[in-house]
Amino acid sequence: MAETIPKTQKAAIFDSIGSPIEIREIPVPEPGAEQVLIKIAYSGVCHSDLHLWLGDFPVQGTCPLVGGHEGVGHIVKIGSNVTNVKVGDRAGIKWINQTCLCCEYCKRGFEQNCENAGHSGCSINGSFQQYALINATEASKIPDNVDLATAAPILCAGSTVYRALKESKVQPGQTVAITGAGGGLGSMAIQFAKAMGMRVVAIDLGAAKEEHCKKLGAETYVDVSKHPDLVETVRKATNGGPHGVLHIATAEKPLELATQYVRTRGTVVLVSLPKDAQLKADVFWTVFRAVTIKGSYIASRQDTDEALDFLSRGLVKVPIEILPLSSLPTVYDRMLKGEQIGRAVLDVWK
Amino acid sequence: MAETIPKTQKAAIFDSIGSPIEIREIPVPEPGAEQVLIKIAYSGVCHSDLHLWLGDFPVQGTCPLVGGHEGVGHIVKIGSNVTNVKVGDRAGIKWINQTCLCCEYCKRGFEQNCENAGHSGCSINGSFQQYALINATEASKIPDNVDLATAAPILCAGSTVYRALKESKVQPGQTVAITGAGGGLGSMAIQFAKAMGMRVVAIDLGAAKEEHCKKLGAETYVDVSKHPDLVETVRKATNGGPHGVLHIATAEKPLELATQYVRTRGTVVLVSLPKDAQLKADVFWTVFRAVTIKGSYIASRQDTDEALDFLSRGLVKVPIEILPLSSLPTVYDRMLKGEQIGRAVLDVWK
Amino acid sequence: MAETIPKTQKAAIFDSIGSPIEIREIPVPEPGAEQVLIKIAYSGVCHSDLHLWLGDFPVQGTCPLVGGHEGVGHIVKIGSNVTNVKVGDRAGIKWINQTCLCCEYCKRGFEQNCENAGHSGCSINGSFQQYALINATEASKIPDNVDLATAAPILCAGSTVYRALKESKVQPGQTVAITGAGGGLGSMAIQFAKAMGMRVVAIDLGAAKEEHCKKLGAETYVDVSKHPDLVETVRKATNGGPHGVLHIATAEKPLELATQYVRTRGTVVLVSLPKDAQLKADVFWTVFRAVTIKGSYIASRQDTDEALDFLSRGLVKVPIEILPLSSLPTVYDRMLKGEQIGRAVLDVWK
Amino acid sequence: MAETIPKTQKAAIFDSIGSPIEIREIPVPEPGAEQVLIKIAYSGVCHSDLHLWLGDFPVQGTCPLVGGHEGVGHIVKIGSNVTNVKVGDRAGIKWINQTCLCCEYCKRGFEQNCENAGHSGCSINGSFQQYALINATEASKIPDNVDLATAAPILCAGSTVYRALKESKVQPGQTVAITGAGGGLGSMAIQFAKAMGMRVVAIDLGAAKEEHCKKLGAETYVDVSKHPDLVETVRKATNGGPHGVLHIATAEKPLELATQYVRTRGTVVLVSLPKDAQLKADVFWTVFRAVTIKGSYIASRQDTDEALDFLSRGLVKVPIEILPLSSLPTVYDRMLKGEQIGRAVLDVWK
Repeated sequence: MAETIPKTQKAAIFDSIGSPIEIREIPVPEPGAEQVLIKIAYSGVCHSDLHLWLGDFPVQGTCPLVGGHEGVGHIVKIGSNVTNVKVGDRAGIKWINQTCLCCEYCKRGFEQNCENAGHSGCSINGSFQQYALINATEASKIPDNVDLATAAPILCAGSTVYRALKESKVQPGQTVAITGAGGGLGSMAIQFAKAMGMRVVAIDLGAAKEEHCKKLGAETYVDVSKHPDLVETVRKATNGGPHGVLHIATAEKPLELATQYVRTRGTVVLVSLPKDAQLKADVFWTVFRAVTIKGSYIASRQDTDEALDFLSRGLVKVPIEILPLSSLPTVYDRMLKGEQIGRAVLDVWK
Repeated sequence: MAETIPKTQKAAIFDSIGSPIEIREIPVPEPGAEQVLIKIAYSGVCHSDLHLWLGDFPVQGTCPLVGGHEGVGHIVKIGSNVTNVKVGDRAGIKWINQTCLCCEYCKRGFEQNCENAGHSGCSINGSFQQYALINATEASKIPDNVDLATAAPILCAGSTVYRALKESKVQPGQTVAITGAGGGLGSMAIQFAKAMGMRVVAIDLGAAKEEHCKKLGAETYVDVSKHPDLVETVRKATNGGPHGVLHIATAEKPLELATQYVRTRGTVVLVSLPKDAQLKADVFWTVFRAVTIKGSYIASRQDTDEALDFLSRGLVKVPIEILPLSSLPTVYDRMLKGEQIGRAVLDVWK
Repeated sequence: MAETIPKTQKAAIFDSIGSPIEIREIPVPEPGAEQVLIKIAYSGVCHSDLHLWLGDFPVQGTCPLVGGHEGVGHIVKIGSNVTNVKVGDRAGIKWINQTCLCCEYCKRGFEQNCENAGHSGCSINGSFQQYALINATEASKIPDNVDLATAAPILCAGSTVYRALKESKVQPGQTVAITGAGGGLGSMAIQFAKAMGMRVVAIDLGAAKEEHCKKLGAETYVDVSKHPDLVETVRKATNGGPHGVLHIATAEKPLELATQYVRTRGTVVLVSLPKDAQLKADVFWTVFRAVTIKGSYIASRQDTDEALDFLSRGLVKVPIEILPLSSLPTVYDRMLKGEQIGRAVLDVWK
Repeated sequence: MAETIPKTQKAAIFDSIGSPIEIREIPVPEPGAEQVLIKIAYSGVCHSDLHLWLGDFPVQGTCPLVGGHEGVGHIVKIGSNVTNVKVGDRAGIKWINQTCLCCEYCKRGFEQNCENAGHSGCSINGSFQQYALINATEASKIPDNVDLATAAPILCAGSTVYRALKESKVQPGQTVAITGAGGGLGSMAIQFAKAMGMRVVAIDLGAAKEEHCKKLGAETYVDVSKHPDLVETVRKATNGGPHGVLHIATAEKPLELATQYVRTRGTVVLVSLPKDAQLKADVFWTVFRAVTIKGSYIASRQDTDEALDFLSRGLVKVPIEILPLSSLPTVYDRMLKGEQIGRAVLDVWK
């Protein structure tokens, strides 16, 4: 028997860039022919949500806007044209909410770069509400055995770092350095890297994060505060530099240093989307050492399925803090102050 | 019957960084067990020779120094341990003069990044002399049917752009933009790209170079002086941006722009070694558009063989100007003023 | 103003496997929500059409059946859900008629291997009729400047060999051997290979085909009838074996020989779908010489777009013979006797 | 102080193909300019040694011959031209004993396919003696922390399966099936695959091997004797087929089946060198499912270093049985009867 879907629902919404986030009752949307309506259980909170609220990015959200792009729940209604999923399926909402599957990028298997993409919590209302829409082709299938709250951050944070590790071309047995390793994305990156057979050098600030990183699987920890010559330190610790670097930290200087300590012929992957940051690197050494620097942009549908499979197989643990939807402003505040420990996951029903 | 080798020879030499280049009589060197002695016929002049003379690079030459790393001639003597080549073989001297063939990079097929590399015209006297040494394993075989003077610039300029085109991962039928397309490296890059099935967008300054670039095979020419919005212009001309960019121009701004007009998921390859240049790129767009920026460092032995094969098959013409060895200071002067047209190739016997 | 679509149309149809092909009046089908109706102008005839009619394959068509999967024309009607194309667009019908775009293979960019694929002229009526259906996402856009009749064979034959050349991993400047080079697929393969910068060794039977193959761009022709030791001959002609082989010939023995003359570390690509053929190769030498043998299955949507772009740029000429729809049985008869010269293309309105 | 090197030594030698293997006193060889003399401690026994003794291969050994190509020990003397290693270094002897490092294959990083290769225990006396020669460039460095006897089988068996796993292109999180998984190579393959993040389906005969394979890291065990429909069984166990197959079993039928159960677009890698075996596969399905079948030929120097690094990091355990040199005939006898359990490693001093 079909679930009853209410006419209205609770959502965290803001009316214009930077205006207060309010918990309001808004209409439950109706799925278009290609869409599904997902009853959200939990939604992770990503730094990009914060940036979009504040208008930090060159890409702007469509206001009034419900943010959120790490939503998990189950499908309660499907559009007239949907055949690949059905009501009752566990499903997830990602940053990529709709794609044409027909442009050059979609055809080449890079549908995250679709020319006609719609984005959750940006051009389309996201997962900080109780019922959210996504194109059926873009809804991720959530494996039966995983905890929904834990799965939420995989939809963006987890799958993004997983993809970035693939883009690094670091092979099993080779070494990857991770900047900002002790944070939310970094903590997941360490675990994915280890499960992929890589050796991890965790780089972060302060002694407190050493135990955390090593517990998650890092072989080496480099405390930036203790090593003024980071380049020399990392090179020594890795016998010539790591084969790849996942640059998750948001500051510019660590990125420039990463291009210097990465192994000759190695790859620095840019993952996060800090506000106004510039990449700087010396041309001579970039050429002489044949260094590659590449941006890795979130995850494809296939990447997301694979990342969820790692979760399902118990290879990745996600440190989360479950909070009510109404605490979103508090979470943003903590993020701005760098005080959010673990990934905040909102229970949209509380 | 073996050729007579004199005790002394003519060389263009300088005693310290930046000191005058003199044509002097110096001893003909004796090959070590692993080396061959090549009687040089011609030597191309590369911008890096100029930079090394002036001490512009973080890597410094060992003075007194004979520059030059685009030498061609034939082998007149081989070391006691040499078996892969013989006296009489046509052979070339490249930037990479010796490698260990045993370090990690050599084993991985990247011997140009050998940890123990010696460099012609830098740590070892180069090809601006009549007799020069190179490790037998590093001497390039010059095909029988090619003109020696023409082959010289392939040893560095030609093989470097060829390698860079391979590194760009641009596929036949896809588009590559070449900055500084009308210059020496650019002119060769256009031809290699075309022979590799790529479609070429030549980018340079001034109307004069349009005909030149198109004659060499460029499909489109973009005159930077006429298009203040280069990013928009190139994107339009390529229906969304070229799949790859060979950044040969030495200025910084065109490089930053290349990271903006390159196609989403495309690759910008840094080829040349300008003095003090910095790579700058916006992190947000580099990530969002999944752009790759990579340094391509000269050519491996295999790349050089392949590039010479393209020359041998008549697919690449090298515009050269043959000058006597003594004109090297004049060539450097012209280079500094941007007045050298075509590749200068020195006849070391005149 | 919309075009009038008749209720019935002419089609070449057979009622059961192997039963006579009749030209009959059948209803014009109505597009489903995801489909488009294409008014066919021309349709190429592929060997697979013949095999499907005769029931030669382990995969069987759904009878009564209209064959054909190389159809070109323009869209006259679109389904309720179609947004990526519009009425009036020139469009092509390929073997892959529908895909889910949601299974693992679709997500990985291999939608030709879709778990839920429908096939033109096999599970769905094909292009040997005046009006045919295809999923909007699978309809190929035909470039404005190409002749429709010439474009038809690109939809299967041309794009299939193009894809196979990509799968061969043969790089520009390297050598590819093509078996059955003088036939329909082979003739296109020679031209694509040349346009991709490869050097072509054409292998076929008889002196008559030499001129044909060389005119299309083959550098070398090997007449199987003149060289009893094909392996030795091809190895000599290619200085150690071609880097790749496109095995288009349908016999088994030439395939086994291809695994022997392909260069060490080279790749033999299987392209065609002969009836009941077995691949045989010696395990010892396959391992010792590190040979790769791979099946390449038709083309993805992106491959097809790219192949059409080569046609549009004038790099590939397609030798066709235009015949009326009613001559299909005659064409099949010629194919069985090996007498069809050039690709037969049916004008479905004659 | 230099070690004393005797004039003669003990070796297991045979005078002609198939003639009795005798333990004889033969001269200690003198290293050439490029060679090192290794005092062997242990030598693993490989099936190829047996085949070479019996003349089973199309490649024949140079008699009288000392077999063996999995030797470990330390360097006691170096040739006049050797600089990359020194007396006292722990070093290993592999199948590839000398290469030119200058042919096309060497330049491309595939020096195992060197056109001028010499092979231990085949064209050059191998490691079934107390002092053996190898080119300095080919001697593998044995990490300090590994047990020498355990390291021996990595020099061929271990590094070969490691390379084959890389060639399979199976990614971390994907599935690899291993035929003959319970045997010597298979046991190592399971462990390498697991350490590389792959999921392993072990395929072998009999219930006894199930526990063994699972203990080593296999996720699934398929007992061929219990599953008459192996193709269906493996496909079911892997949700559509493993992404790759390492075919280690020597029989032909399992190989043909592997081409059928491998996942669509997957890769079957041939690893072992059985006598007279033929690869057979259906062309239609190989094409339709886009299956790749490739031979993987032993390991490059870099692969061997990497494989030893996995051993050094404790990720691979090698089940060995240490026996005196004189038991070589017994070991061969057991191999022929399929009774050798674990890898036989000979102590050449007993």
